[in-house]
Formats: sequence, C-alpha cells, structure tokens
Amino acid sequence: MKINLNRLMIDIESYAEYGKNDLGGVTRPSFSPPDHQVRTRFIEELKEMGLSITIDGAANIWGRLKGNGNKKGAIVIGSHLDSVPNGGKYDGPLGVLMAKEIVKTLIEQNSKLDHDIEIVSFTAEESNDFNLSTFGSRAFVGRLNAEMLEDVRDSKGSQLNEELRKVGGALHDFGKMESLRAEKLAFIELHIEQGQRLEGQNIPMAVINRVVGTYRSIVNVVGDPNHSGTTMMQDRKDALTAAAEMIIEVERYCKEKGDVVGTVGKLTVKPNAANIIPGQVEFIFEVRAETEEKIQNTVSSIREVWLDISKRRQVNLSQKVFLDQRPVALDQDLIRILQNTAAEMREPFLTLPSMAVHDAAHMASITKSVMVFVKSINGKSHCPEEYSRPEDIEIAGNLMLQGIVNIDRILAGKETKVPN
Amino acid sequence: MKINLNRLMIDIESYAEYGKNDLGGVTRPSFSPPDHQVRTRFIEELKEMGLSITIDGAANIWGRLKGNGNKKGAIVIGSHLDSVPNGGKYDGPLGVLMAKEIVKTLIEQNSKLDHDIEIVSFTAEESNDFNLSTFGSRAFVGRLNAEMLEDVRDSKGSQLNEELRKVGGALHDFGKMESLRAEKLAFIELHIEQGQRLEGQNIPMAVINRVVGTYRSIVNVVGDPNHSGTTMMQDRKDALTAAAEMIIEVERYCKEKGDVVGTVGKLTVKPNAANIIPGQVEFIFEVRAETEEKIQNTVSSIREVWLDISKRRQVNLSQKVFLDQRPVALDQDLIRILQNTAAEMREPFLTLPSMAVHDAAHMASITKSVMVFVKSINGKSHCPEEYSRPEDIEIAGNLMLQGIVNIDRILAGKETKVPN
Repeated sequence: MKINLNRLMIDIESYAEYGKNDLGGVTRPSFSPPDHQVRTRFIEELKEMGLSITIDGAANIWGRLKGNGNKKGAIVIGSHLDSVPNGGKYDGPLGVLMAKEIVKTLIEQNSKLDHDIEIVSFTAEESNDFNLSTFGSRAFVGRLNAEMLEDVRDSKGSQLNEELRKVGGALHDFGKMESLRAEKLAFIELHIEQGQRLEGQNIPMAVINRVVGTYRSIVNVVGDPNHSGTTMMQDRKDALTAAAEMIIEVERYCKEKGDVVGTVGKLTVKPNAANIIPGQVEFIFEVRAETEEKIQNTVSSIREVWLDISKRRQVNLSQKVFLDQRPVALDQDLIRILQNTAAEMREPFLTLPSMAVHDAAHMASITKSVMVFVKSINGKSHCPEEYSRPEDIEIAGNLMLQGIVNIDRILAGKETKVPN
Repeated sequence: MKINLNRLMIDIESYAEYGKNDLGGVTRPSFSPPDHQVRTRFIEELKEMGLSITIDGAANIWGRLKGNGNKKGAIVIGSHLDSVPNGGKYDGPLGVLMAKEIVKTLIEQNSKLDHDIEIVSFTAEESNDFNLSTFGSRAFVGRLNAEMLEDVRDSKGSQLNEELRKVGGALHDFGKMESLRAEKLAFIELHIEQGQRLEGQNIPMAVINRVVGTYRSIVNVVGDPNHSGTTMMQDRKDALTAAAEMIIEVERYCKEKGDVVGTVGKLTVKPNAANIIPGQVEFIFEVRAETEEKIQNTVSSIREVWLDISKRRQVNLSQKVFLDQRPVALDQDLIRILQNTAAEMREPFLTLPSMAVHDAAHMASITKSVMVFVKSINGKSHCPEEYSRPEDIEIAGNLMLQGIVNIDRILAGKETKVPN
C-alpha cells in the first residue's frame, strides 16, 4: 500500500494558492480571509471523502473515518493549515494534506482498520496577532481555558471569541473538548524539519523522540552613556561591547556542546546615537535543548562567564526569565513502531529531537504522540524558499501510512497498554 | 590681575535657571523660549558693561570693549549659551560667562589693551532640531551659506530663517559676515573637557593643540534569518554574532593604540525577534583621532579584521562612509603663548587634543585659534551631573585672563605674523 505522491503534490500546490503573495510566499494566519477559504474547502473535501466532521470549541477541524468497529477510539493524524506572514507551502499543510492522502489511500484500498482514523487541522499553530501560538492544540488538551481567553483581543481590537465563532468554534464549547480528549488513542504528526540535520547526512526522514525545552530570559546590561569623543577607551563602561562579549560566549558555549542551541535574536541599544557610548543594552537570550538539565547547565555556565565579563567591565547585569518550557518526551511505543516500520521498509532514517515546538508536544500530555520529520532543503522555513523534495515526502508519507497500519494493529493487540 | 571667582560662580548658577528642568538639568536649545530669555539678559548685561553690541546674520552675539586704539582688530573670547536637552550648567555657558568675567576684570582694573577685546556667544552649537550643530560658527566662517539654508525647517516645520529673525539674525545678512571675519585677530575658547584625561592625572586644565577628526560609516552585516530552534549552531549565518566580533575588534584595536577612540553607538537588528537568528545588523562605526593618518590606519586595520570575520562566518559586509571631518591644528603661536603664561603662573597644565568638535575648530579656518579645557569631574557631560570644581575653573580663568593680556602684547609687537 502506497500513497499517491502526484495527487498529494497537486494538493499542496493548490492549497498554497490561498493567501499566496507577490513574493511567492503564503500569508495565511488563522482567522484571515484565506484561512476562512481554506477551511471551507478542507471541510468540503473531508465530507466528500465520507468522513464525519467535528469542529471543536477551538475551531480545530476533525474528520473521522470509521474503522471495522472492533475497537473504540481513534488514531489521529494531522498538523495545521495556518501559516506565518510570507511563509512557505509546507509548514503545517504538509502534515494535514498527508493525513488526507493517507486516509484517501486507506479508503481506496478498502483497508478497514480496527480503530477509527481521524484527521485533524489545529487552529492557529503559528505565532499570531492574538499572541497565542499552538492555540488549537493547547486549548484541546486543556492547557488554555475559556475563562482566561474571554478578554483576549488582537491588535485591531477583535475578540478571539468572535473570530472563533466565525469558523465554527466558541469559548463556551471548550468544556465539551474533555470528552473528545478521552477517546484519542494516539497522535502522529508529519512536519518538515526546518533545519539541516537530515540534509547534512543526506537522510530523507526522521522519527522524532523528544521536543526540546525552550528557555528565554530578558538580559539587561547597564553601562555609562558618555560622549564617544571625549571618553577615552579605558574610561568607558560600554554596554554594547559588554553585550557583544556575552553574545559571543553564548555562541561559543553552544557550538562546543553541540547538543544545545543558544540565540540572541532580539537586541536594543540605548540611547542608540552615533556619538554616545551605549549606556544600556537589552536582549533576549534563548536556549533550547533535549533535557531540562542541559538547558540549566547551559544557562548557568554562560551566566558564570557573563558575571566575569560584567565585573571586569564594571557594567551592571540583570536577567529575568520569562519562558521555561520543559522538554517533552514522545511516546516510546510509537517511536519503536515507526522505527521498526522504517527498518522493514528498508528506508534510512534518523531518530532526532524536534528543536521547535509543534502541536504534538501538547498532544503528548493527553495521548501517546510521535512525529515524523521530512528533510528540508537548506534548512529554510517560514519563508517562500521553504522546500522539501517530493521523493523525500513520498518516503515519509509511506512510513506514516504503514506506521499507522502497524500502530492500529499493535494498539488493538495490546489494548491494556493504551491509556483509557 | 585675577578674575572674581565668586561673581563668576553666581553668574553660572544664575544662567542655569534658564531652561532648568525637574531633573536638575538645563534644557535650552537655541531658539527655545529659555534661549530667547537668556539672550535678552546677556545682551543687556553686555550693554551695562559699556560694550558695543553686534548681532550678525547667524544671530551670534558679539560684545566689544574698545582697546587703547593703538591696534586695529579684535581678540575674541567666547563659546555658546545653548544646551542639549537635559544638559549641564557648564557646556557652553562656562566659556561665555568666563569671557564676560574677564572683560569685567579688565574694565575694573582699567586695563586698556592695544586691541579691542570681543566676547562672542555662538548660536546653536549643540545638535539641534535643525540638524545643524556648530551652526553659528560655521555660518560665521562661511562654511554654511544662506542659499543652502533657505528651506531648512525643524521637525515641527518652523523655518530656520524665521527662528533666526526672532533673535536678531537673518539669512540675507549672511553676506555681511565676511567683513566682520576680516578683523578677528584671534579666538580663544574655554570649555569643560567632558572627559577624564585631566582628572586621571589630577591636573586642573589643558591647553588644546588640535581638534580631532571624526570618521563615521554605516556598516551593514547580512546573514541568514533562520529559526532559532531548528538551525543548529554550525549551520548558522548569524549577523549579530558576526557584528559582536566586529564591535569587540573596534574596542580592542583602539584600546591597544591608545591615541584613537572608536565607538559603535548605534545598532539595529533585523528582524529582531526572540526566535529568529538575526539576518541583518546595521551599525554606525565612529573613529576619532588627532591626525587623518591615524584615522585611516584605524579604519583600514579594523576593516581587514572585519573582512576575515565576515569570510569565516559567511556573512556579507558592506560599509558606507557618511562623515569624514578632518582634524584641525590650532594656532602654534597662541598655544605657545598660553603654555608660557601657565608656566609663568606656575600652574600645572597638559597639552591635549580636543576629542570633540567645538566652535574653535571652525574659527581656526579664518583666524588664529586656541582652546583651554578645564577638568571635568567623572567625565560627565550633556547631563545634569556635569560638573567642574570652582578651584579648577579659577585657575583656567586666570590663565585665560593673563593669556589674553600676553596675546594682545605679542600680537601688537609682532603684527607682521598676524593674518590680515
């Protein structure tokens, strides 16, 4: 049993028309007009396939293919259809459209599984104007509740609840999601890697075993904003040269460790004038790693060097943590099933952690979850140049298809091991 | 003959009331209401002293004390009365009020000199809303002409010419400044150091022999704006870590040389988001040194290292020079007279270059010019904490007074050496 690659690629190109911009990118944030259009089309197509549709309180779209009735509950496959501004064609849609392709293949092959198979498209996975990324999956697993969302508005003043209602959701339906959660037996998400680890080793796909944790702090370096001409080099307390040393230490440490990434992506200088030595630099320091221990070791080792720098340069250093997302272990059983499936198919694969958060990281809190990554070209993502080769997509798709068949069989045979 | 320190200090405090703000600083940009008030008071005081007043096209205020008639032309002393926003009491006013104090002392002592002595207060020396610093002196020496100023407006749309007319100037009077220039025989400006060289050696004052040149370029570093999680350290082209290395090289080189200052005071990061590796960093690179050769050596040595950094990091580097102000040598004769005068008075002094541009740097293009610096405390300037000790001000003031007497005598005896 194989997916129809040609049909899938046509589907990907066709969906990329919704929100396509002049730069060749896709601008389709959730709740935007192209998002409305793409939702309508998607739901229609699922209906045509004979699936039963559910729109939950968070406006996540679920399309369910009945199994042979032997077992209760559903195996879920999917991702998201929204995009960042000027994003690519693959981040999100690949996982949703592959889910559709897999279910189509199962229907065509008349292959009834023991469990129901369900496609999901989560709402607002990307950073958005409501400041709520992975909104749909967080709401579904109960990490966002209706009460705390009541007054949430976007920058134009639109209420989240209003926008939800336009696409079939509603805050007052959040309570109903609890019963839906109980019968999801497994979640499998296909996504592009958005990095270069697979390309670097020329491997088409990876089974994902963990989602890294993310730590972010605001770092404030305060020096002395003096005249750039009259203040000799040795009399300076330059907040920017101090920050520059700190930034290089982040890079040096993480490069040396190899299994952690550290970034200063946002930085502002004050007063920011050509003839004034920077008196203050504020920057965001981010660390991502597979384990909380690695994150904490990185943060404390770098902080030690930073303290030396600030002492030597007589600048004041303060740091405030504002994000400490713990790493998530994905499901050992599903990982093993996918690894074995790939081995049986004689397809090369890596087992890697995901360096970015995805809906699967939240789904893992309520059900057995796993991810498959397909190789990205040049690591590009969130831009029009985002690309994965059809031949790699095909291999990953067939692993998903055969993996789901195997998961269905094994979960049916080992029902005592499956939660609820 | 000595200045009256007490009278001068009362004067400085009293002038600081014009534009005083809640933070204890002085906000008195040229053409502001407090500037109007301070001009009116200053002109009245000069008149009371019996001086003849000239307001030139640039609204510079000149007050002239007749000499004994033996020699034509005037020896000019002064500085400026405008301030930066939330500036101090000394930057500018010290030089103008000391000029007034010196002339008062000469009048009281009935000390008629061979030449006329003239006090000047230049208009808009500081950076201002018209983007024209050292406006008054540049206009006076012919470096700004009326034609290029006709359409100049501030950020509120006010015309420079309108503002000039409110304080007695006018663009159509610029032509008349040429004849005024011809009979200025010397210019001596007293200013606070705004640095820590004098304090570092515990010396009250300096004779200034040069004004440094200033070079500024916009530097653009372009890398690759990728995802901060999925892009491993070795796959990054981070424009900010590259810029950080470049900034540290500026500091390292200038510190090692000791006779040059280099600063990155302004810097912006794009796209400037916590989860995106910086794709672009733009910064302003400034170098100041006593000679053009030192500036050029600094720029080219640093550029060589920068090119290595950009090659190694595979980022694109471009640089555009937008300011190349040449260093100015002050007058050898006046420098020697002041040095000898200080030695005769048995007062310790240093001979230093000025690391900032002052009106004297422009006056040097039309007449023999020199400066005296008085020690700043903690190098603070352009802020309410700006301070110089009265005892240091007194020593510098008496050097100015005795120096002018000596300059008058020597210029009179060596008239062939005097320009025009």
